[in-house]
Amino acid sequence: MIPENKDSGVSVKKLSVESYKGVRDFYPEDMFVQKYIFDRMRKAVEKFGYVEYGASVLEPAELYRAKSGEEIVNEQTYTFTDRGDREVTLRPEMTPTVARMVVAKRRELPFPLRWYSIPNLFRYEKPQRGRMREHWQLNVDLFGSKNIEADVEILCVANEVMSSLGAKSGDFEIHINNRKLWNSLCEMWKCTPLQQQKLSKLVDRKNKISAKEFEEQGAVILSSYLPNFIEAMNVTTLEKLEKGARETEGYKEIVSLIQDLEKRGINNARFDPTIMRGFDYYTGNIFEVFDANPENRRSLFGGGRYDDLAALFEGDKIPAVGFGAGDVTVRDFLETHGLLPAYGSSAQLYIAVQDETCRDSAEQLSGQLRSQGHNVILDIAHKKLGDQIKTADRQKIPFVTAVGAEEVKSGAYRIKNLADGSEKILKADEISSYLKTQLAL
Amino acid sequence: MIPENKDSGVSVKKLSVESYKGVRDFYPEDMFVQKYIFDRMRKAVEKFGYVEYGASVLEPAELYRAKSGEEIVNEQTYTFTDRGDREVTLRPEMTPTVARMVVAKRRELPFPLRWYSIPNLFRYEKPQRGRMREHWQLNVDLFGSKNIEADVEILCVANEVMSSLGAKSGDFEIHINNRKLWNSLCEMWKCTPLQQQKLSKLVDRKNKISAKEFEEQGAVILSSYLPNFIEAMNVTTLEKLEKGARETEGYKEIVSLIQDLEKRGINNARFDPTIMRGFDYYTGNIFEVFDANPENRRSLFGGGRYDDLAALFEGDKIPAVGFGAGDVTVRDFLETHGLLPAYGSSAQLYIAVQDETCRDSAEQLSGQLRSQGHNVILDIAHKKLGDQIKTADRQKIPFVTAVGAEEVKSGAYRIKNLADGSEKILKADEISSYLKTQLAL
Repeated sequence: MIPENKDSGVSVKKLSVESYKGVRDFYPEDMFVQKYIFDRMRKAVEKFGYVEYGASVLEPAELYRAKSGEEIVNEQTYTFTDRGDREVTLRPEMTPTVARMVVAKRRELPFPLRWYSIPNLFRYEKPQRGRMREHWQLNVDLFGSKNIEADVEILCVANEVMSSLGAKSGDFEIHINNRKLWNSLCEMWKCTPLQQQKLSKLVDRKNKISAKEFEEQGAVILSSYLPNFIEAMNVTTLEKLEKGARETEGYKEIVSLIQDLEKRGINNARFDPTIMRGFDYYTGNIFEVFDANPENRRSLFGGGRYDDLAALFEGDKIPAVGFGAGDVTVRDFLETHGLLPAYGSSAQLYIAVQDETCRDSAEQLSGQLRSQGHNVILDIAHKKLGDQIKTADRQKIPFVTAVGAEEVKSGAYRIKNLADGSEKILKADEISSYLKTQLAL
Repeated sequence: MIPENKDSGVSVKKLSVESYKGVRDFYPEDMFVQKYIFDRMRKAVEKFGYVEYGASVLEPAELYRAKSGEEIVNEQTYTFTDRGDREVTLRPEMTPTVARMVVAKRRELPFPLRWYSIPNLFRYEKPQRGRMREHWQLNVDLFGSKNIEADVEILCVANEVMSSLGAKSGDFEIHINNRKLWNSLCEMWKCTPLQQQKLSKLVDRKNKISAKEFEEQGAVILSSYLPNFIEAMNVTTLEKLEKGARETEGYKEIVSLIQDLEKRGINNARFDPTIMRGFDYYTGNIFEVFDANPENRRSLFGGGRYDDLAALFEGDKIPAVGFGAGDVTVRDFLETHGLLPAYGSSAQLYIAVQDETCRDSAEQLSGQLRSQGHNVILDIAHKKLGDQIKTADRQKIPFVTAVGAEEVKSGAYRIKNLADGSEKILKADEISSYLKTQLAL
C-alpha cells in the first residue's frame, strides 16, 4: 500500500521532510553499510583484545578549550548554554572524553587498558565530500604503556581494520612521523615557538599547494635554515635526514616502529616528514593511513601517541596511544575500491497469506520458524499474492512462500528463492535446515 | 602500570573528570550491559523481519512543535540556535524523525515497512531514577497498514523483546487502551475539547494520587457525568464498561487485539482505561508494558497506533503503529528480576611474555590464534608474570598462557582457566579448538 500524495486542499503549513543541514538520514540500505563497516571494525579491534566503552555526545565545553586547538573550539564546535547556565559542547572528538573517563577511575582500572568506541562526533563546518557536520568514528586507544610495543600494536590494529574491510596491503599506505623528531628539527633550525607553530601549519598544507608556494611561504617564516627545512620536508626515507636529526629520540622511535611492523609482515608503512595531525596533544609517533590510489590520495584516518593529555585533569600523566577512523572517509574508500557489500534484508523468509482462512496456519508456521532462530515476515497487508511477492522482492528478502488451502491440507510449502527463481517443496520441519544451508548460517 | 597521583606542585587549573549532568559514561562493564540489551532487542525485532535505520540526533526544532505536546518542546527539549540562525533540537523522541524519513521517500519505499532503530534521545529534565537527560530507546514501527494484524504484530514484537531479555510472561503485564474509545467516552460525557484535555492529564496521574484526590480533581472538570467517568476509570475488564462504550469502534479494536494476542499465546494483556500515553499523536490502540511485581509496578515502555502523524508533512496520511522501549527502565527491570548478565571481556586469551627473547614466538602464537578468529591480548607491559596474570584476571579475560624459553622449545603451552584454576597443556594447533569448546563458540 503506497499512499497517494493527493492535494487535500487544506492550507495548513506543512513541515519539511529535509533533515538538518550537513547530517545524514540512514535508510535501511544506508544503515546496512554503516552496520557492515562498524561490525568489521569491532571484529578487527576485538581480535586484539580491545573492549568497547561509550559516553554521551554532550560534554562540558571546558573539556575542549585546553588541547583540541583554539580553532576547533572557537570556530568549529556546536557549543551552547543550557537552561542551568552550563556551557555544553556536542563532542567534536572522542579523545578528551576517554581521557576524562580513564583519569576519573585511574585508581581502580586495570592498566594497560585496551579500549574502543564508535561515537558520533560533531563539527560545525561547511559540508563537503568526506566532511559532514556529524560523522561516526572508530576510536581505539591503549592506555598505560610507554613501550614501543604499544605503538606497534596500535598500528597493527589499524592495519587489521583495513584488512577486515577487504583492503589489500597495496590499497593503502601508512605514513609515519614523530612529534619529538619535529621538535628536534625545529630546535636545530633555531625556531621560536611561534615560528614552529607557523611551520607546522605550513607543512600541514604542503600537499595542497605547489612546491614553489611552499618554499615562498617557508621563506616568510625562516631565513638561514630555510634550505634545511625544505630538504627535510622532501626526504622520502629516514636515512636521508641530516645527521643531527638521525641522533634524536624521535628518529629512533620511528625506526623501531617501522622495523617492528615489517617483522609483523606490515610492509606498507613509511616515514613521511609532512604528517602533522591537527590536534595539539600528540607527543611521539603519529601516523596517517592514505589511499594508495594515486588519483585519490586522501588521508583516510590517523592517530598517534599522546602521553600528556591525562595531566590536564588531576593527577599525573598516563601514557596513551590511539587512532580514530571516520565512517565517511572509510565508506568513500570502500566505494572507490569496490569493497561495499550489496544490500540484503535481515529478514530471511516472507510468508504470504493466500486467503484469510489460512492465516492461523501461516501464523503457526512463522512462529515455528522464528523459534528456530529465523527472521520471518508474515503478511498483514491482505494484498494479492503477486503484490506481496513483489514487495518482498523490493525489500530484498531472499525467500518467499505462500500459505493457501492446498498448503494447509498437504503440509508442504513451496519455498522460492527470489534471486534465482528456483523453488523447493518442503515440509514445515525441513524449512529451517534448508534456509540455514542456503543462507550459509 | 597504574600511574600515581602525585602532587606536581604546579598551580594550573585542572579540568574536572565529571561528565555533563544527567548523562552517563559507559565504562566497559556498563557498555557490556548496554550491548547485551541492544543485541537481544535487535535479535527479537529482526525475528519479525524488521530492518534497522538511523538518523542524526540533530533535527530542525519545528519538527517537534506540532505534535509532541507543547510542554515537551517548550520546557523539556534541548533547543538552540546554530551559527546559521537555524533552530536545532536534540531529538527528544524518534517518531517524528522516522515519520519525516518515511514521508520523504513515500513514493519509492516498498510498504508496508517494518523498521527499527536504537537512537539516543534527550530530555531537559531533573535526573531521577529511571529518568536521565539522555537515554537510548528501541523504536519499532510498522508503516502502511491499517489492519488490526499490524497492531497484533507490534504487540507480539514487544512481547518477544521482553522474552528475549529473559522475562517470563508472569514478570510483566501489557495494559491496553484505545484513543478512539477515550474520545467516544468523552463525547458520551459531553466534554468540550478543553475538558477532555484536562481529564486526559488527570487520568495520566491516577496512579500517583489517591482515589479521593482523583475524584475531587475530576469534580473540578466534570459535573453530572462525574460518576460515569469515575466508574469507567475503575473498570478492570472491558465488559464492565457502560453499554454505549461497548458499541464503539475503539472498543471493538481492543477486543480484537486482546483476542488475537490470546490466540498467539500472549495471555498477560488486559484492558486498562487509565493508559493515556504522553504524546498527542496516537489515534487507535495504545499500550504500556508494566512490571508485574506489585512492589515495583512501573511502566517499562509503550506505544500505539498513530495514523495521522505523516500528514504533518506534504501528502496524505500513512497508517502507522509502533513502540519505544528505553534502556534505563529496561535495565532497571532486568536488575530487579536478576536478569542482568555477568561481565566478561570480549578478549578470550591473554598471552603473557615471560622474557623478551620469547616475544617473537609469543607474537607468532597470537597472530595464529587471531587468524583462527580468536580475540587475543599479547602482553606489551614488560611486567612480572604474576602481575600480568593478575591484570588479565581483573579484566575478566577467561584464559591465560605464558610464553617462556621452555614453551618456545617444547611448542607446548599451559592454558589456564582463570575462573576455576584448571590447566591444560596444548600444542599451538590445539589451542583454537580447545578455546572454542570451552567458550562454547
